[in-house]
Amino acid sequence: MILSALLTSVGINLGICFLFFTLYSILRKQPSNVIVYAPRLVGKSKSQGRGEFHLERLLPSTGWVKRAWEVTEEELLSTSGLDAVVFIRIFIFSLKVFISGGIIGIFFLLPVNFMGNQLSYDFSDLPNKSLDSFSISNVDEGSNRLWVHFSAVYVFTGVVCYLLYYEYSYISSKRVSYFYSSKPQPHQFTIVVRGIPVSSGSSTSEIVENFFKEYHHSTYFSHTVVRRTNKIQELINEAEKLYKRLSFLKLEKFPQKIFKREGFLGLFGRKVDLLDHYEKKLEHLQDNLRVEQSSLAGKEIPAAFVSFKSRLGAAIALNIQQGVNPTEWVTEKAPEPQEVYWPFFSASFMKRWIYNLVVVVAYIALTILFLIPVVIVQGLTHLEQLEIWFPFSKGLLKLTFISQVITGYLPSLILQLFLSFVPPIMVLFSSIQGYISLSQIEKSACNKVWWFTVWNIFFANVLSGTALYQVNVFLEPKNIPKVLAQGVPGQASFFIAYVVTSGWTSLSSELLRLMPLVSSFWSWLFSKIFEDFEVPSFPCHSEIPRILFFGLLGITYFFLAPLILPFLLVYYCLGYIIYRNQLLNVYTPKFETGGRFWPIVHNSMIFSLILMHIIAIGIFGLKKLPLASSLIIPLPVLTFLFNEYCRKRFLPIFHEYPTECLVKRDRADQNDPMMAEFYNKLVTAYQDPALMPIQRSRSTDWLKAPLLHDADV
Amino acid sequence: MILSALLTSVGINLGICFLFFTLYSILRKQPSNVIVYAPRLVGKSKSQGRGEFHLERLLPSTGWVKRAWEVTEEELLSTSGLDAVVFIRIFIFSLKVFISGGIIGIFFLLPVNFMGNQLSYDFSDLPNKSLDSFSISNVDEGSNRLWVHFSAVYVFTGVVCYLLYYEYSYISSKRVSYFYSSKPQPHQFTIVVRGIPVSSGSSTSEIVENFFKEYHHSTYFSHTVVRRTNKIQELINEAEKLYKRLSFLKLEKFPQKIFKREGFLGLFGRKVDLLDHYEKKLEHLQDNLRVEQSSLAGKEIPAAFVSFKSRLGAAIALNIQQGVNPTEWVTEKAPEPQEVYWPFFSASFMKRWIYNLVVVVAYIALTILFLIPVVIVQGLTHLEQLEIWFPFSKGLLKLTFISQVITGYLPSLILQLFLSFVPPIMVLFSSIQGYISLSQIEKSACNKVWWFTVWNIFFANVLSGTALYQVNVFLEPKNIPKVLAQGVPGQASFFIAYVVTSGWTSLSSELLRLMPLVSSFWSWLFSKIFEDFEVPSFPCHSEIPRILFFGLLGITYFFLAPLILPFLLVYYCLGYIIYRNQLLNVYTPKFETGGRFWPIVHNSMIFSLILMHIIAIGIFGLKKLPLASSLIIPLPVLTFLFNEYCRKRFLPIFHEYPTECLVKRDRADQNDPMMAEFYNKLVTAYQDPALMPIQRSRSTDWLKAPLLHDADV
Repeated sequence: MILSALLTSVGINLGICFLFFTLYSILRKQPSNVIVYAPRLVGKSKSQGRGEFHLERLLPSTGWVKRAWEVTEEELLSTSGLDAVVFIRIFIFSLKVFISGGIIGIFFLLPVNFMGNQLSYDFSDLPNKSLDSFSISNVDEGSNRLWVHFSAVYVFTGVVCYLLYYEYSYISSKRVSYFYSSKPQPHQFTIVVRGIPVSSGSSTSEIVENFFKEYHHSTYFSHTVVRRTNKIQELINEAEKLYKRLSFLKLEKFPQKIFKREGFLGLFGRKVDLLDHYEKKLEHLQDNLRVEQSSLAGKEIPAAFVSFKSRLGAAIALNIQQGVNPTEWVTEKAPEPQEVYWPFFSASFMKRWIYNLVVVVAYIALTILFLIPVVIVQGLTHLEQLEIWFPFSKGLLKLTFISQVITGYLPSLILQLFLSFVPPIMVLFSSIQGYISLSQIEKSACNKVWWFTVWNIFFANVLSGTALYQVNVFLEPKNIPKVLAQGVPGQASFFIAYVVTSGWTSLSSELLRLMPLVSSFWSWLFSKIFEDFEVPSFPCHSEIPRILFFGLLGITYFFLAPLILPFLLVYYCLGYIIYRNQLLNVYTPKFETGGRFWPIVHNSMIFSLILMHIIAIGIFGLKKLPLASSLIIPLPVLTFLFNEYCRKRFLPIFHEYPTECLVKRDRADQNDPMMAEFYNKLVTAYQDPALMPIQRSRSTDWLKAPLLHDADV
Repeated sequence: MILSALLTSVGINLGICFLFFTLYSILRKQPSNVIVYAPRLVGKSKSQGRGEFHLERLLPSTGWVKRAWEVTEEELLSTSGLDAVVFIRIFIFSLKVFISGGIIGIFFLLPVNFMGNQLSYDFSDLPNKSLDSFSISNVDEGSNRLWVHFSAVYVFTGVVCYLLYYEYSYISSKRVSYFYSSKPQPHQFTIVVRGIPVSSGSSTSEIVENFFKEYHHSTYFSHTVVRRTNKIQELINEAEKLYKRLSFLKLEKFPQKIFKREGFLGLFGRKVDLLDHYEKKLEHLQDNLRVEQSSLAGKEIPAAFVSFKSRLGAAIALNIQQGVNPTEWVTEKAPEPQEVYWPFFSASFMKRWIYNLVVVVAYIALTILFLIPVVIVQGLTHLEQLEIWFPFSKGLLKLTFISQVITGYLPSLILQLFLSFVPPIMVLFSSIQGYISLSQIEKSACNKVWWFTVWNIFFANVLSGTALYQVNVFLEPKNIPKVLAQGVPGQASFFIAYVVTSGWTSLSSELLRLMPLVSSFWSWLFSKIFEDFEVPSFPCHSEIPRILFFGLLGITYFFLAPLILPFLLVYYCLGYIIYRNQLLNVYTPKFETGGRFWPIVHNSMIFSLILMHIIAIGIFGLKKLPLASSLIIPLPVLTFLFNEYCRKRFLPIFHEYPTECLVKRDRADQNDPMMAEFYNKLVTAYQDPALMPIQRSRSTDWLKAPLLHDADV
């Protein structure tokens, strides 16, 4: 890729970004869009209703940037929770890393690269210069200037490690103070017990009660046995759908009766009144539901939520093996009641184990199969290949602009499209694994998406680009540095374009929320009753890996092609503002993990650093500077040791709170008059929602209310 | 190696074994040897004193075999503890494995191997036949007979896994019932706390007390702060030595005065009365000691033994992180008081971490350096090589007997000699790592010795034998099966000889206890006062890896050269009897881990199985049966999954006892009138022995008694 192609790409994307920003600043002021751009505030009913029309509403403005900028961390913490703060810290951390990296890269490495003679020494035709002349590829073999790169790698690693340590310590202290300031919550007092050994004589409930009264008699409080309610949930969902249709039909929009044929697809059979038809169906469903709910006693799962009188009591039962057989009485932290994920609540130890294995196999299969689209996309950056595949396009590809668009823009767009299918699949995988809470599922999916991205975007591109693409490489660890060193620098232009297109575009479309905008417009156009308004939650599992992946690109290309860094800095600056805005206005947290996503960030950064070192070992070898190559070797070892230390120093806090915190909080509660009320709530906190229709959202009113009739509406 | 050479070796070793057995059965009846052959019984003073002389005492007998055979597991458990039972179970388990393996190997594989045509088809000259004609090397390439081997691998793996599962479950149930039947012991109620955050204002003791009274107020009982007593211990040791010399001098054997020169090595300077000299020195030491002991307050280590009122209380403090900073208040299980290892009781988290790293590096260095003697020994089995190295020996090596001795016997004897230095070094390494109990040190050393043996005996021999010896192989995992398949079958004869020489000989010399016999004879010859009688403890860390290594040989060579199996069976039968005898008569347990050595056995067996599978993959590839080669691949995966399951199912029991057991035991104690006395003892149970001279063995009487004078003796 030549410089001008990159500039074209940058130009296009800057244009798109400005267009989106302008559109956003106008659209967000339209009252009808408030549920798209500020659903969170609607949820909290802070937003005013349909206002008067002003001309101002049609002019773009930057007030939202200012507002997003001004929010302090404490405000963010109080409105969106610690997870949001941690998410924003990723941007702050990355900015710190890449500002320091950028200074080294642009002022020291870039001049050295450009002065090299390996590729060309022609200053005249700058726009047609290959991007490679800005990369390490241009430095002469065996040149002593490579020691600049060598020192840069050491200095940068030191800086990143220092920042990582600082951030880990900052977030873990935040986590502890967050715990101290949190109100008593059911999940702090509760654990999940699976693998309860069921005997034929007594019910699961009795067994649980006897066990915990026996072995935790001073702290045991109550328990809720989990029941298999998939079928009831299905019935409820179906009934809800029917009820909505019914309400819709009964609205004034359709005063005349509507008929429908009974038979196949509503095309054959005798005509029936649709209203009657639905009402009968609903009644039938309700009968079914009642039967199901009454026959539920037999559907106990050998699992239960067990609550304790104190946090320490729960921690004790959680941390010490309960039964003699470790596959029975398996304890686990309880999630918050609203984030329990019921559908895959499987209890048996063996079943979960087998599901886990199945997921691992499926994950590997998907990761490998995904290579096919990646390889095709890769072809697009090599135009010659494309011309061989599609000979008829030769004429078209000769046009500079089109060829620039194709090489600079299309590949990452297609990749992006394919990638958008990945996070939901990973969530599905994680839910099959038997995690019981949405946060665990998202965390596990986040990890899966991250490794998937690294493999399928980074490695697949790097290795296929050098025509050396073979899984075999990883069976010969000795060759890895060499192969990577051959492949990685060549893909610099692709990844710079990737940052610009995929990175910038994803941010601006995140801001504009194109899909919700269209669907809101759609529902406004046709009907209002179907608009089942729900404040969206933040999709950590797809956003975090993406941001981390740009971090990986920045770290690995830092010394290879420092030209990537300014683009990354733009990305992180934009991201910082945009995500703060979105967290304030759009998303509401579905759960609160207390910053447990940070270890994923930390690990991915360590991985990126070690990857950089391996590439450096290879590069210095290829550039015939074996001494530098050997002198890099201690660096990954030291980084690994640093990581080990951090694991010991900080990670435990992210798993469990220590006795010190638990006892302090418990003691503070003892004097709290509200605790009696809290304990009352605790008893029923973990009832399956399918069994407690009355406490659900208003859309389930039909369960207790008699059927609506025209007169009621 | 040819068959007759093997038979020579077997003959020699059988001879040695019988000689040793005969000697043993005579020597053990001599009253003067009772402290060599039954020190345990002397320790318990069950053994009768010097009896009358009978002719019987000079005749060999087999009574000891009968007695060792008749002991039941319960007796062994009550006299030597669970560790001894687990140790004997290794033999029972191995016998089961190799009897089933032997049936398959001898009746199915051996005939198939022998019928092959790859090497020779000459039945006539059996004694000169190479051992290789009994191995898989003799089977034709691509022959369908290899499917017999294929099936044998599958069947054998199944059998071993079944036996492993059975044994793991048996031993874990033993462990639980052992816990139920054990008396209240201090270490069940105590934990070790390290990394106590010391503040300048208050003493460590106060900090510990405040912390545990605050956060464990209902269960905290007492604590003992650890002090740095290395110097005192040194003084005590020195004084003990002096005291012994003094007593020796005062005995009637040396009624006349002995003089010694004061200066260098006792050769120069003025003459002094030795008795006076020592007495003065001792007095001086005693003064020093008093000064040291009184100045001890300042030498507190930020670590303490903290005791609780119940086992559950200790488990709670153990299992939940205590302080907010995970590197402070680090808890650990307390060892039994008598097995605390004081010298390396370092407290700081960082220090231990760095020591650990140093040990890892030292371990790797030793493992690599050790290759040098191994490679030399390897040369001995290839006589031609030896002739090249030492040309003058050509004539000597032409003699059949000598060449047979050299190839069949010498190599493993030399190896054995070198190997005998390894266990003490590993114990030193483990103690530097900062383990606080002898049992942990031995366990860790056991693991170290095992991997050391595998690497330096198995891999070094296999890889150097094929002249393909390179560490590089392990950097190219793809080639591992092929390289192993080329190397391993060729070493069959070496390892068969190794079993016969090293295995059988080590057993018979274990029985005869040559070293203690000689030293007892020595001390009997010269003096009696120096005989500082101590019942030896069982050296798990050197014995278990050796036995496991024979298991590895048996499993890997099972389908390659089944001829090894009969020799192994003899080894295990002998071992079973001999070690039972030794455990009953010789060794006394220094500590009781409750069978925590078993997971090491289990893991090593799984490793052996997977190694066998990898070799099988390579062998079937080399033998041009690629289908069999691919069909073996699921086997290591399945074995790995089986191991994972076992880890989940059984391993937790070997780390901690579950709440169920703890609460049951605690409750049983509540009604025990002896508990008050136990609690009294608990307070001082973990005092450093250097600070409690009065309760030590009688050899420290000098600390309280005035100096002995001639009249007293």
